[in-house]
Amino acid sequence: MIPLYTPECGECKFCLSGKTNLCQKIRVTQGQGLMPDGTSRFSKGGKTLYHYMGTSTFSEYSVLPEIAVAKISKEAPLDKVCLLGCGITTGIGAVLNTAKVEPGSTVVVFGLGGIGLSVIQGAVMAQAGRIVAVDINEDKFEMARSLGATDFVNPKHYDQPIQDVIVDLTDGGADYSFECVGNVNLMRAALECCHKGWGESVIIGVAGAGQEISTRPFQLVTGRVWRGTAFGGVRGRTELPGYVDRYMDGVINIDDMVTHTMGLDQINTAFDLMHKGESIRSVVIY
Amino acid sequence: MIPLYTPECGECKFCLSGKTNLCQKIRVTQGQGLMPDGTSRFSKGGKTLYHYMGTSTFSEYSVLPEIAVAKISKEAPLDKVCLLGCGITTGIGAVLNTAKVEPGSTVVVFGLGGIGLSVIQGAVMAQAGRIVAVDINEDKFEMARSLGATDFVNPKHYDQPIQDVIVDLTDGGADYSFECVGNVNLMRAALECCHKGWGESVIIGVAGAGQEISTRPFQLVTGRVWRGTAFGGVRGRTELPGYVDRYMDGVINIDDMVTHTMGLDQINTAFDLMHKGESIRSVVIY
Repeated sequence: MIPLYTPECGECKFCLSGKTNLCQKIRVTQGQGLMPDGTSRFSKGGKTLYHYMGTSTFSEYSVLPEIAVAKISKEAPLDKVCLLGCGITTGIGAVLNTAKVEPGSTVVVFGLGGIGLSVIQGAVMAQAGRIVAVDINEDKFEMARSLGATDFVNPKHYDQPIQDVIVDLTDGGADYSFECVGNVNLMRAALECCHKGWGESVIIGVAGAGQEISTRPFQLVTGRVWRGTAFGGVRGRTELPGYVDRYMDGVINIDDMVTHTMGLDQINTAFDLMHKGESIRSVVIY
Repeated sequence: MIPLYTPECGECKFCLSGKTNLCQKIRVTQGQGLMPDGTSRFSKGGKTLYHYMGTSTFSEYSVLPEIAVAKISKEAPLDKVCLLGCGITTGIGAVLNTAKVEPGSTVVVFGLGGIGLSVIQGAVMAQAGRIVAVDINEDKFEMARSLGATDFVNPKHYDQPIQDVIVDLTDGGADYSFECVGNVNLMRAALECCHKGWGESVIIGVAGAGQEISTRPFQLVTGRVWRGTAFGGVRGRTELPGYVDRYMDGVINIDDMVTHTMGLDQINTAFDLMHKGESIRSVVIY
């Protein structure tokens, strides 16, 4: 099974809408760090510890609501497919579910961490014609290329705004762009590098609290579309088993994304590596 | 025929895309106030006058590029269907082409001028379940009601942000909202009054030069979509004849939108009436 920070009850207004994966059934208690019955199942020394993001996966054992668990193939290696519980699925889903990229499209990806690399995988699955990878850390370009990126842009090499560079590079702009960093200035660039008339930009990154995005409304009036996505629009219990199967079939590459494997006692080292840009995703096992 | 400020050549990258009505074939010369051959066909006292928005309809005679003319039914009364050359089609098209409103949807319209009232007509044609009309001039509510609006909100009556009022009124928010004023603060409210998970907001109004829209990216990450539209996404030569036919068949109401008819020498009076909010659209005839 894979734990889901976005559950799927199949009964709430959101699940029944067929338009979103944002099940709201246990949102209030999950936000409080509690199980749906209002209790916590963690404690230490008699003191209550709270559940984290509804999954509490930085522990050896966890208790989850039934609607927050996806049942997957028994053959799947858990030390790999656990990554489908967040970033990889988010990136692929953003392409396939949220943007619905068509074959031949020009796709631009801002930020080549685990999410951005997964967007590249999704763009390959969607048969995009051109995949432009953007990052200021050029060490990321090699893996981006191996996963299917066709063009590479380091904004530090240009004096112009990066949206102008990309519009020139792509004969008028991106059909689809994805912001995978959480930087509000980059979110604007990602929108404005889209093609007039139809380009769509998808925000995946999480910005700092209170930060705002902005642009001239003319950008939208002339046909660009601004979207966002959470967990790639993927309904966990319904769709995640299929993602696992696609990994087992070799369609989704997880193995190359796992740059480090370490024990739970090294979890802080794993975060340090990620912040330094030296790892993509580390799988923490105990 | 109806003159088109957005032409349709059928040959450029934009026309061939099938994704936009923003034909770019004569954009440069139109922007310069010139015909495609670089000349002006207007002069007074030997001095060149420039074409306005490619149509120059504030005159008794005009010269237009062939691709900027829609051929319509010979039976259509020109003093009425001329309004399909801009605002009415823009409002209806924003609903049918850009937002693609589904039957039963909750639609919120900000601003009840000619565009907003046409959005209401479009929402009725799309069989929206609920149509919320928002304006600070309550004199507009009567016509909005006669065209099909079901709920009426005057933001001046509330201390809370109007987006919060509308979210409460609509059980979670609008399925679709339309900004028909050109006020960037209202554009934000129109986005933020949309339903989490799927609500889409369409900017129709034209903001002042240099003004910007802003919001927290969380609004998009949680499923709202921000769009804009020009001429309602309508390809003039292909689709406008059908709009004229729908007027002739009584589906589109133009007659009630014409509150004044006056001569060309009274054109400035017509603008004054519109600015004062005393007219919807005036047809200027000579």
